[in-house]
Parts: sequence; C-alpha cells; structure tokens
Amino acid sequence: MTDFNQQNISGQHFINGAWTSETTDFCSNNPVTNQALAFKFANASAEIVTNATAAAKQAFKQYRSIAPERRAAFLNTIADEIQADIEAITATAHLETGLPMARLQGETGRTCGQLRLFAANLINPIDNRYVDLANPERAPLPKPDTRLSTLPLGPVAVFGASNFPLAFSTAGGDTASALAAGCTVVVKGHPAHAATSELVCKAIERAANQCDMPAGVFNLVQGVTPEVSTQLVTDSAIRAVGFTGSLKVGRILADLCASRAEPIPFYGELGSTNPQFILPQLLEQQAQELASTQVQSMLMGHGQFCTSPGVIVAIKSDGLNQYKATLAQDIAAQSAASMLTSGIAATYQAQLETLIANPNIELIAQGESSPANHFTRPTALKVAANDFLASSEIQQEVFGPCAVLVECDDAAQMLLIAEQLEGQLTASVHGLEAELINNQTLIEAIAFNVGRIIFNQMPTGVEVCHSMNHGGPYPASTDSRTTSVGSAAMARFERPICYQNMPTSILPERVSVDAQGVKTF
Amino acid sequence: MTDFNQQNISGQHFINGAWTSETTDFCSNNPVTNQALAFKFANASAEIVTNATAAAKQAFKQYRSIAPERRAAFLNTIADEIQADIEAITATAHLETGLPMARLQGETGRTCGQLRLFAANLINPIDNRYVDLANPERAPLPKPDTRLSTLPLGPVAVFGASNFPLAFSTAGGDTASALAAGCTVVVKGHPAHAATSELVCKAIERAANQCDMPAGVFNLVQGVTPEVSTQLVTDSAIRAVGFTGSLKVGRILADLCASRAEPIPFYGELGSTNPQFILPQLLEQQAQELASTQVQSMLMGHGQFCTSPGVIVAIKSDGLNQYKATLAQDIAAQSAASMLTSGIAATYQAQLETLIANPNIELIAQGESSPANHFTRPTALKVAANDFLASSEIQQEVFGPCAVLVECDDAAQMLLIAEQLEGQLTASVHGLEAELINNQTLIEAIAFNVGRIIFNQMPTGVEVCHSMNHGGPYPASTDSRTTSVGSAAMARFERPICYQNMPTSILPERVSVDAQGVKTF
Repeated sequence: MTDFNQQNISGQHFINGAWTSETTDFCSNNPVTNQALAFKFANASAEIVTNATAAAKQAFKQYRSIAPERRAAFLNTIADEIQADIEAITATAHLETGLPMARLQGETGRTCGQLRLFAANLINPIDNRYVDLANPERAPLPKPDTRLSTLPLGPVAVFGASNFPLAFSTAGGDTASALAAGCTVVVKGHPAHAATSELVCKAIERAANQCDMPAGVFNLVQGVTPEVSTQLVTDSAIRAVGFTGSLKVGRILADLCASRAEPIPFYGELGSTNPQFILPQLLEQQAQELASTQVQSMLMGHGQFCTSPGVIVAIKSDGLNQYKATLAQDIAAQSAASMLTSGIAATYQAQLETLIANPNIELIAQGESSPANHFTRPTALKVAANDFLASSEIQQEVFGPCAVLVECDDAAQMLLIAEQLEGQLTASVHGLEAELINNQTLIEAIAFNVGRIIFNQMPTGVEVCHSMNHGGPYPASTDSRTTSVGSAAMARFERPICYQNMPTSILPERVSVDAQGVKTF
Repeated sequence: MTDFNQQNISGQHFINGAWTSETTDFCSNNPVTNQALAFKFANASAEIVTNATAAAKQAFKQYRSIAPERRAAFLNTIADEIQADIEAITATAHLETGLPMARLQGETGRTCGQLRLFAANLINPIDNRYVDLANPERAPLPKPDTRLSTLPLGPVAVFGASNFPLAFSTAGGDTASALAAGCTVVVKGHPAHAATSELVCKAIERAANQCDMPAGVFNLVQGVTPEVSTQLVTDSAIRAVGFTGSLKVGRILADLCASRAEPIPFYGELGSTNPQFILPQLLEQQAQELASTQVQSMLMGHGQFCTSPGVIVAIKSDGLNQYKATLAQDIAAQSAASMLTSGIAATYQAQLETLIANPNIELIAQGESSPANHFTRPTALKVAANDFLASSEIQQEVFGPCAVLVECDDAAQMLLIAEQLEGQLTASVHGLEAELINNQTLIEAIAFNVGRIIFNQMPTGVEVCHSMNHGGPYPASTDSRTTSVGSAAMARFERPICYQNMPTSILPERVSVDAQGVKTF
C-alpha cells in the first residue's frame, strides 16, 4: 500500500475555492491499531464556519441559476475526479476506518453512481411538473395560466457519517442531491475520516474548476468540537441540513433547526434495528439457510450499517430451534474486529454488557474473543416477546454486530410486536408466498412502521435507484416524508413555486408545455 | 333569510360518530352588529380532546386501508351533502362572519370543488410512482425489484381559519387533502364561526354514514381556550397538523409539534403582504387602471385574504403620481365595514394607528369613517424605500384593507427590496413584456422569496388546480416545501414507502406496472 502521510493532506478547511491556513488541533486515528495517524487537522473556529456559510450564500446567487445540464456536468466531473484518485482515497479511508479495501472500492463506485444518477435525472427529469393552461372564457372568472416548478432552498449543511466514509460523506448522497437541486454546500467532515474527506474535497475542487463553477459552491470545514456543528446549523445562511448519525446528536441538531428565528428542514437519518419477521412454514423448510444469511447480513461492515438486521422475530417451533442452533454455530465462528472508531467500540461493549446482564436476556452465542480491547465480538441474544415489548432498552439499536432473537408464543404475539415497533428504516418478512398471502394484517402493521418493507431478502444493501426509500418514521429519521437515497433525495433541497400568467418569453424551459415531464391540463 | 337559532345547532362536539353532551361555555358573535348570537357552544375539556384523538386513531386502522375509489366516493358525498344544505350553511356563515352571501356561496362552491378535485385525483392519479424491476443477472449483486409508493401519516389535526369559514375550515382544503390521503381528521372549529362548523360537520356525518366509513373518520371539537389547541397538537395520536392563521399562534403550535417526543409535521399558512412590483413603462401607460385594480383586490373580503396585496413597490415618476391620485380617490370612496371578528378589527386599528403615527409614513387616503367602533376604514399609506427597508414594523402584514406604497428612487432600490423581502405567499410583477424581459434579475430575486410569482394579475383568487402553490418561504408558511391548495396539498399527509421484492399476489394495485402513473425502469 502507498505510504500516505501529512504531505498529501493539508489538514485545512476548503472555503470559497481556497484552502485556509490554521493551526492544527486533532488527528484522525487508525481504529485497527488504535493509534493516531500522521494526519493533523484544524478544528474550525467560529470565524471559519461563518466564512464557509457566507461563501456558500454568495455562491448560491450564481449557482441557483446555472442550467441543469451544467449542474449535471459538474456532478459527472466530480465522479470522474473521485475515480481518478480512487487509489489514494480508498487507501486513506482504509487507514482511517479499517474497512476492507474491496468494500471501500465498492463504496466509491456507489458514491460515483449516486452522482451520476442525479446528473442523469437533471438531463432526463423523471419528476412531474404540472401546467394548467389559461381559459379566458371561463365564467364567472377567467382561469389564469399556472405552472408548478421548484426552486433550490439555498446553502445546505451536510454532516459526514462515520460508517460510510464515501457514500454518506463529503461527496455522498446528501451533497450530490443538494448540488443537483441547485443548492451550494458546506460539509462538516467527520473527524474519524478527515483525511478521506480532504481527498474527496480535492476531487470536488478540481471538478468545480474544470466546470467553471462559482467559488463557494462547495466548502469543507473540519472539526471535532460540538460547537462547529451547532454553529453551522444555526447560521442564518444555511437553509437545510443533511445528517447521518446517532439519534442523540441528530435530535440536538434537529431541535436547534426547529428553534431558529426562521426554522429550516433538518434531514436526519438516525438508524434502526431493521427487524426480521420469519413466518413458520418457511422457517420449518429453511431454518439453517435463514440463520446463515442473517449472520452474513449482520456482519457486513462489522454490523455498522444503518440497515443491519438487529432484531429477529419468530414463533417457537422445531424450525426455530434449528435456526438458533445454526445461528449459534455461525456466530461463534466469527472473529472479533475493530469498529469504525474506538468510541463506537466502547459504546457497543457497554450496551452489550448491560443487555447480557439483563435477567430476561439469554446469550445465544458470541464470536471469538480478542486480546485487543477495542475489538468487538459478534453476538446473538434471545428474549421472550413479552419481555421485549416491556423494555424500551432491549428494543434500542445496538450499533454493531449484535442481533436479538425475539421468541413469540404465537402469531398474535408477533402481530403485537409489529404493531408496537418504533419507526424503522426497514423490516423484512420472510415467508412462503402462501403464508404471506395469509399474513396481510401483519404485513400492513409492519409497513406502517417502516420506510422500506422487504420480502425474503436481507435489509443490508440499499439500492441506488428511482424507487428507493431510505428513511422511515421517527426515530429512524427525523422527517419520514423524505429519503436520503435514490432519485427522490433531491426533493429534500427544493420547494415548489407557481408561475402565474408568466409570458412565454421569460418562462423557465422546464415548465414549457413541451418539456420532458410536463403534464398539461 | 331563514331564522336560525339554537334549535338548529347543538353546540356540542362530534366524536366517533356521535354528538357529545357538555355544558355550554361560549357563543359565536355577529361581527356586523357586534352582538352575541343565540348559538351556544361547549369548550372542549381535556377528556373530550383525548376522546376525539383516540377515535381518530382507532378509525385510522380501518380508514388507511380503504380503497382510493371508496375514499373518492366519500369526498364527493361530503360535497353533495354540503351543497344539499348550502342555504343554511351560507346563511349561518353570513351571521357569524358578516361576509356577503354571494361570496359565501362562491366559497361553498370552491370548498366542494376542492373535495371533488381530490376525489378525481384518487380515481385518476396524477402523481408518479416509480418501479425499478429486478435484474437477477446483475453483477456483482442481483438487483431487487423495488417500488415506491406512499402511506398516510395518521390522524391529522386541522385548525379552521377565521377568514375562510368554509374553504379553509371544517371541510376545507386541509381536511379534504388529509381524508384523500387516507388520514382521519380532528377539526378544531374556529370559535368565530362555530355554528357554520357544526353544520358542515353534519354534512360530513351524513356522508360518512352513507359511505359506510368507520366511526371516528372525522371528529369536530369546539373550543375557545388555547389549551384545546395545545393539547391537540401534543397528543401522541396526532401525526400531522394543518393550520391557517396568525404567525404568532402558528409559531407557538409549530414549536410544540417540533418539541414532541416524536416530532410531527406542522403545516401553518401564516399570511403575507403579497407585494406588487410595478415597472415604469406600464405604470406610465396604465396608472389609473393599475390603481383601481389594486383597490378592488385589496378590498376583497375587506382585506382579509391571505393574498391581499398589502405592499406596492414602484419608482418615482409622473406615472406614479397619477397612480397615487387614483389610489387616493378610489380609497376615499370606500365604505368602512366590520371585520371577521371584533378582535381582528381592534388589531387592525391598533396597527394602523402606530403606522400613521410613524413620522416616515404619509397617509395617502382613508375610506369613509363610521360611528361603529368595530368598523374599519380602508387605508393607503406611503413610505420611502429606505425607510421601508429599515423598519421591520412597516414590513409586517396588516391584516385588513390597508396597503403601503413604497416609493423607490430607482431600479436599484426596487431590486434591493425584492432581495430583502421576507418570505411571501405571492408577489406580482406588473410590466410590459419588453420590460419584463429586461428585468429578469428583479424577477429572479422576487421568485426566491415567494411561493407564487404572478405577472400582470392581482394575487387575490387562488385557483384550485394541479399547478397551484399556496405556501412560501417562512414566515409565509412554516413549511415552504408544501402547498395548502391544489393537488399537491395531499402529499403533506403522506410519506414514501418502498416495497422490495414483494410478491405480485400481495402487491398494492397502485404500484403494479400497469397502474396509471407508474413509471417503470
């Protein structure tokens, strides 16, 4: 692997098209060795944050009116520039996160795919726009010509996620959809992979220069103190926020956005236990396969996916006993591994300790132990349905490779769990087609508590496409009306505008009657 | 006119399909005579509010799964039943609001039109749904079948507006769009027209019975104390709120919604000054006509429209002098009249007194005075652009028949006003086509601060159609991403859901590949 060190990384902020110069305050860490890396970064001062939002505000005046085709070219060029530097980016991300190179290469591909999807949607819009033509003859009053389009909201603050250093970070889905919508962006880089953020920012910088974008279209501030975040979301120049992270931090920032003099939308994707409901007949037929698939899914990214399946719901049976046996065997064979940060590892271990000490919980199995304190063990636990329902603690997400099997006495108990679920990003139902047909009350109850309902597949792997929804009822996300993945993610950073009786000579192209996606009435 | 009295009006709440029995606490008033009417109403207790939300929650479990065609029939039947009782409804509304009968008949037609528009959209959906078909051969991972649809949010609380006793009240746009979306409803009737609310509620009751809807699909609570409102929006059963009213009350309720354990969307349409920008060449040609049209528009509903044009922006010129002369003459010829409530009249008078006392403001003209204290006089004021920009007080909405003419020295000053506008529902630009083409910077600046930009027409009269947007940047509304009028209003009460790998045998009809509005990729 290439030897990366401070000479590749400035450790500075990128504001209004230039790298700032500030003292260095913190390092990113290698979570595998649990040692600080050689990369050193500045923690953004209040002045730096103000400069960044002011740059984004100034650039918005130009960027908002740039034609969709030019925005598309910018997004595609960002993807090109990330691909051009993929070796350094993935190697750096590997140092900072410990995630395997293959995974990081895949994630880079996904990140570029997202940028290109929004670019394609700008060139061939898939959304509808509505035009109601004038009718001057209508009585008692003539009908005016009205046309419904959208405008970008303004500068957007984006918070990089710990668990996807590329796809949900600097040039991830929030940034891509905000830029596609015509918004300028200020990213707060996640301190756990600040060097990766800087390299991706440099790819965006090169793309902005090549595409002749206004300085300030994209800005990066680095920071490790909460003040950077709170100042950013309360700055009057910022008009919307994209965030992927914990419920605790997400709620603090959401509350700040709601209490501003002029409140702004806060899009927080906060996590989920992604329950797996297994129906009895399929369980009887495929117990071993279902258990092995569960373990594979919950071990992806060592359990640090938003869509990691952390709860399994099934009814007591011979099939379930077989399932548990395979689950125990497969979990026991897993290695311990580092987490994304030593902080995440410590939280996982503390949560697990509390759960294991709970008299209502039975330990099914744990993976191999490790002498390294910051390595965590995959774990499967078991709890009776009634005890699960009675304990909000057991129902909470454990961020990491842990799953709780909830044993139900009967189908009625399973339905009760479905009805009382907290909001989830996803849930899966595993069953034979005949039993799915016979369980539509259960399926409907689940659907009303999730953003994506999946049949006979695992929740890990969020397809980037037009019909994806990655979001869900609170606390899965702070705004269940929106998705952070897929074509509809762009709508988070737009608002409607109606043009009434606007002369054709000045009408925006996208609401002309022959524009693609225009429905005329 | 028929003689209506308490015998037609129970004064009670309508909960879970039945009228409650409670002591009576308040009367509605005749704002013209400024006397209490014979109608007496109960103020909802905490128990009543809880019963209403519990009924809506219980009914939601059934109503959410009722087919779109049956929901459409319900909406159409509500419209039929309102039409069937139009004489009593409009006569009662006339007593309670003082609004002219012709206006109330028109508003009833509009209310029924809205219900029928949403019904039509349920039968022939105009929105898109997206389907990405499976591709089992894709490498490295197969692509699952994903389909994006929507689900209703849950029980919705609706606050009736003072200024539209029908179109924005009991069966108004919020209720119609919530019911269309599959949400059940609890309306808090506006105390200024509580009897009208009851009659409309009875029309909904008859429709619910005829269409075999679940008891609790629609509930009405009457109330005059703030506690009724605050309890309603913080009740955990309520999942979204529709509100039309003042910034002050709207913001209080919005903050309560945001601070709940589980925050919910609050859709507040809070008002606007709807600035009229008049460009010089048109002003030169049509000064008198423009001034007369301004007065007609600002006198609609005695100035109590959300879209009343309360600010006029023009550049000093001979044309403007002519405009002012006609404005003064037309305003002086207007009669004083009662407002919707004596409270609104008092607020108008107090605001006006403060403005007239402001040394930077010049009184252009006032309408005839009246011996009745609760009658208000139409008023035109004048202020220099710099003084307008410097004073947030002068920029505030005066709810009633008042407009402030802002005199600019030049086009640069007009642009400054456009750029610094607070969020507005609408603004109009009046100009010859050639000067519109030459003022696109101005037009763009205005567009970014309004929900609807209008050319050479007045803002009063909100067309109910697919392409309408009635909403705008804060403080025009609390959620600029949504509209309270037109087809898109329904989306406020829905959220997306993705169905992944769902067997065709149980897939909802509306995401089948041959359903109307489905785009397949």
